[in-house]
This record gives sequence, C-alpha cells and structure tokens, in this order.
Amino acid sequence: MSDLPKKIFIDDEGPREGFQIEKQHIPTARKIELIEALAETGLPCIQTMSFVNPRRVPGMADADAVIAGFKPRPGVMYTPLWLNPKGFERALKYRDKLTIRGSLKMGGSEAFMIRNQNTDDARNIEMQHEQMKAYKAAGVPTTAVAVVAAFGCNFAGEISASRVLEVIKQGLDVAAQYGEDPHQVRLADTMAWATPDRIKRLVGAVRDVYPDKEMHLHLHDTRGMAIANAMAGLEMGVASYDAAVAGLGGCPFAGHAGAAGNICTEDLVFLCNEMGIETGVDLDRLIECASLAEGIMGRSLPGSVMHGGTLAKFRQAAAAQ
Amino acid sequence: MSDLPKKIFIDDEGPREGFQIEKQHIPTARKIELIEALAETGLPCIQTMSFVNPRRVPGMADADAVIAGFKPRPGVMYTPLWLNPKGFERALKYRDKLTIRGSLKMGGSEAFMIRNQNTDDARNIEMQHEQMKAYKAAGVPTTAVAVVAAFGCNFAGEISASRVLEVIKQGLDVAAQYGEDPHQVRLADTMAWATPDRIKRLVGAVRDVYPDKEMHLHLHDTRGMAIANAMAGLEMGVASYDAAVAGLGGCPFAGHAGAAGNICTEDLVFLCNEMGIETGVDLDRLIECASLAEGIMGRSLPGSVMHGGTLAKFRQAAAAQ
Repeated sequence: MSDLPKKIFIDDEGPREGFQIEKQHIPTARKIELIEALAETGLPCIQTMSFVNPRRVPGMADADAVIAGFKPRPGVMYTPLWLNPKGFERALKYRDKLTIRGSLKMGGSEAFMIRNQNTDDARNIEMQHEQMKAYKAAGVPTTAVAVVAAFGCNFAGEISASRVLEVIKQGLDVAAQYGEDPHQVRLADTMAWATPDRIKRLVGAVRDVYPDKEMHLHLHDTRGMAIANAMAGLEMGVASYDAAVAGLGGCPFAGHAGAAGNICTEDLVFLCNEMGIETGVDLDRLIECASLAEGIMGRSLPGSVMHGGTLAKFRQAAAAQ
Repeated sequence: MSDLPKKIFIDDEGPREGFQIEKQHIPTARKIELIEALAETGLPCIQTMSFVNPRRVPGMADADAVIAGFKPRPGVMYTPLWLNPKGFERALKYRDKLTIRGSLKMGGSEAFMIRNQNTDDARNIEMQHEQMKAYKAAGVPTTAVAVVAAFGCNFAGEISASRVLEVIKQGLDVAAQYGEDPHQVRLADTMAWATPDRIKRLVGAVRDVYPDKEMHLHLHDTRGMAIANAMAGLEMGVASYDAAVAGLGGCPFAGHAGAAGNICTEDLVFLCNEMGIETGVDLDRLIECASLAEGIMGRSLPGSVMHGGTLAKFRQAAAAQ
C-alpha cells in the first residue's frame, strides 16, 4: 500500500447534497448553521448550494439567501453548483464570497445525461462550449473535467474505460479551444455502480493516459461500497474526494430514492486518521456537525462513526492504565 | 488484485447475532422462520443460537425450542455457539441436527476477556484445556483457533501482531496436547478497530508464520469499515467470512450498544458478485431474508444493498435496449 497519499483534500458536499434531496422544508437559518459549523472543523472546502431551477429542486429555492447569509471563515473555500450558464450567472454574483471554478461536465453515460438533464452527447458538447465562453467572459479559471456516471449507469449498464477516456478527451479538446488545460479529472460514481476493483481499473486507465492530471473521486454509498471504494482510490494514490457530512445526499434523479447518500465525510476522515493520512479535519467537531445535520433533517442519517464513536477515548483510557 | 479468491465461504451469524442483541421479545416461531428462510438462499452455513446463560442473554432463553423446531435443509450446516463446557453439553444434544466443531477461543486482549467473561489469560488457557477434554470425550473435531479482539480493544487499545501470534501459538499448543491440529485461524474484530491496512498487516503476519492454515475473518461494521476490511481480506486471499444478514448484531458487552452490527451478508455477497467471486448465494433471496429480518426485529436494519437494490434490473433493462 505504498501509494497511499500522505494528505487528502475533502470537499464536503453535505449541505448542497442534503438540502437538494430532502423533501421537507428546512429553514434558511438552519442551512446557514450547518455551513458555518462545518467551516469550524478544518474542512478546506464546503459545497454550499446549487443555483438550479427551484421548481425541480425546491430545497434550493433559498440558495441566494443562504449564500448571502452565512458568515465565511477565512481560509475555507465555499463553492456553489450550477448546471448551465444561467445558474453560473447567478453564482457569479457571489464572487467575493464563493470560490468559482469552471469545469467541463461530461457524461460517462449518454442515457443518464438524457434522463437527468435532457442532453445528448452532441448537445452536451455544445453546452460545454457555451460554458467555456461564459467562463472566459467572466475570467473564471477552468480547473477540471468531470465525468458523471463514470462507473456504471442505471440506464446504460456498464460504462467502459474507453468511453470514459473518450469523453475526458472531448472535454479537454473543448477546453483547449479556449486556451484552457484543466489540471483535474473528476470521476463520479453517480449511481453507485463502483466496486473497489472498478475504481482501481478506471483510475489506472485514466492515469495511464493522463499521468499529470490530479484525480478526484465522487462516491455514493447506495450499496454500502463507498468506503471500500475510497480505500481503493487511496491505494491508487488518489488524494482528492467529495464527501458529505453524516452521509447526506444521493441524486434525486438517479432512480433509487431512499437509499444511502454520498460517502460519509466523518467515516472517510476516520479511515484516514487510522491510517495516518492527513485530512486537516477535527474528527470530533465533524461528528458534532453530523449530529447537527441529523437534528436539522429530523431523522437518523447513514453515517457510521457518528453512531459508533471514534477510538480516541478508548486509546486514552488504555494509555492511562 | 491477483490474490482474490475464486470462491468464498460465508457463515451467516445473523440469527445468533441478531437474537442475542435485540432487547425486545422475539417469538420462537419468528426465529425459526428466519433460519429456515436463510437456508433457502444457498448459504452454506448458518449460526443459529447460543447456548449461554439466559439471564445474561435473554434472547437465547428459547435456544432449545428454536433448535428443536426448525426444519433443516439438506446440505446446509447449522451451527450453535457456546462459551463454556456447560453450553457445549447443551449443544451436544442436537448433534443430529447441528454441526458441532470445536475451537480454541483465545483473547487478543486479556482486558476484554476479563470484562467480557471474567477470564484472564491463565484462566482462559485452563478453560481451553477443559474444552479440549470435553471435545475429545465427545468425539468432536477441533477445527479452529479463534482470536477475539484481534485488531484492537476498547479496554487495552491497539493489539500487536506479536500478541495475536502468541495466543494463536498458545491455542495450538493446547490442541496439540490432545493430538489435534486445527486447520483454521479465525481473527475477530470484536470491537471494530480494524481498518484495511490493519487487516492486511495482521493477515500477512499470521500467514507468514502459518502458511498452511485457512484464514477466517469476523468483522463488525460499528465504524463503517466492514466492507473495506473484507475487501482487504479478499485481496489477501482470505476465503472464509462470518457475516450477518441485514447487518444484524454487534456485541452486547463491547461498550458501543446501538451502533451497527456485523458485516452485512448481502453487501458482502454483492461485492463478491460484482467482482466475479462465487459465494453460492442467491442475492435476491438473501435480500428477501434481510427484509424479513427487518420485519421480525421491527426496525430498519443497517444493510445497504437491501435498501439501495442490486444492479441486476438495470443491467437487464440496459441489455434489452
């Protein structure tokens, strides 16, 4: 396991993922409370809200109020999500407060892109051109090519590594036409098809072609594989992950509502702590945030370490004997 | 990942683990119903009940009625658990129905053995002698040395590989005095201290000394690491696992009641199916058993695949297009 990174970067998407998928109304003040609490844990990056159509995603109707309302902590990056230039324009209003970075959003599965956002491959490439023009016009850097449904798709089945490599190349080609060379490749297991062997194979296949790109994983825990998949990523040297406090989230359009959400941040931090991989995160404080998230959502959330506890108190008691 | 086994053996401990830890009364008929349903899934082995003191473990008060009552399916092994010669004598009454195999039960942590069963190392070795005498008198084969708390202990902290190797040797030495050479080494992560790196290190250390022993893992999911730990075991070629349908269980004396239980059988079977490792188990039928277990326990259980679903219907739909 010599490829384990010394330190990883975690982008906590808990607020955005959680507020996106929850059906009940959550007061704006409570959304702000969770974002501000997460910022006290040492997390380097928090994905806050989506600038999307509130008729499709009612939980994001107060995106502006949340973004305007939270008090930023110096040194923490706060990011928004958008799916099209209109959402991007809304996000740009908060450039002083949010970190706005462009990415090309490619579909590992065309069938999923059609179901999820009514966009086939050809239309998606047009849209990436539109996005690139908007990024350039706004002076926003383009930092990543992101592939959704990179490991499998509920509508298309298995996704081959060659397909993923093809859409990464398409994305990089679009970027190059605007003088941009994104340094990061993001692979999203949008519908939870990944297993550790697939993670290793796909990360290996992408790295063979793009050895200098930073790899990033977005993992879902729908089938209980997320921590094992992150471990496979760590063993491949992947040092950048999305995660969601308390395991919030899941995709509302992915066809398995009710199942577990994203990989749980505190479980990932626990794994890293135990293996000596730095995350910069205070695990105890993060667990308090996970409990806060349960209070806000009004239900038990899927995280394990928040319920099972860490090993710290046992180690301290054993050492004191 | 060339060490992945082609086939693994799963001992489903769901009934024993589940009925042991649940606080509410479960009717005998429902315990029998779960055992009989599990036997229809292709599982090769089901741990049924414990012959223990019903004052300490009220859920096992009807152990005799459950064992007497279930209808065995040919080809399936049904096993009991006992902790001392008195429990063993109770189990022996059902030799026609249960598979009775002796094992030496060693403590990776002496502190845990004292807390869990008021037994220090010296007393435990005496007890293993008593057990061996009982096994020999009954003509029961001794097939395993089992180490509880092999990866860490809430009362003693980290457990070193050298300590685990020491107690394995003690157990084998006791067995040898009775002319027995158990073929299997069982490592139990009783209090959920294991992470994948620890699994690989300890399995490797034991295999270096005992290359011909079959390795077996008993994993808990208290901190969400169980599937990642099983994956580490698979990568080390370990081909025998305990697991519990729906993730039932947990140790009532391990100091973290309320947390998740054992590694979930259907999640482990899903992982294996996806990687082409045979288990002999019909995953759809097993998921039905997991739902049955939720109905019997009257609450949501921790399994993921039972809630998130398998990939089979998506693959079929994609193939039909």
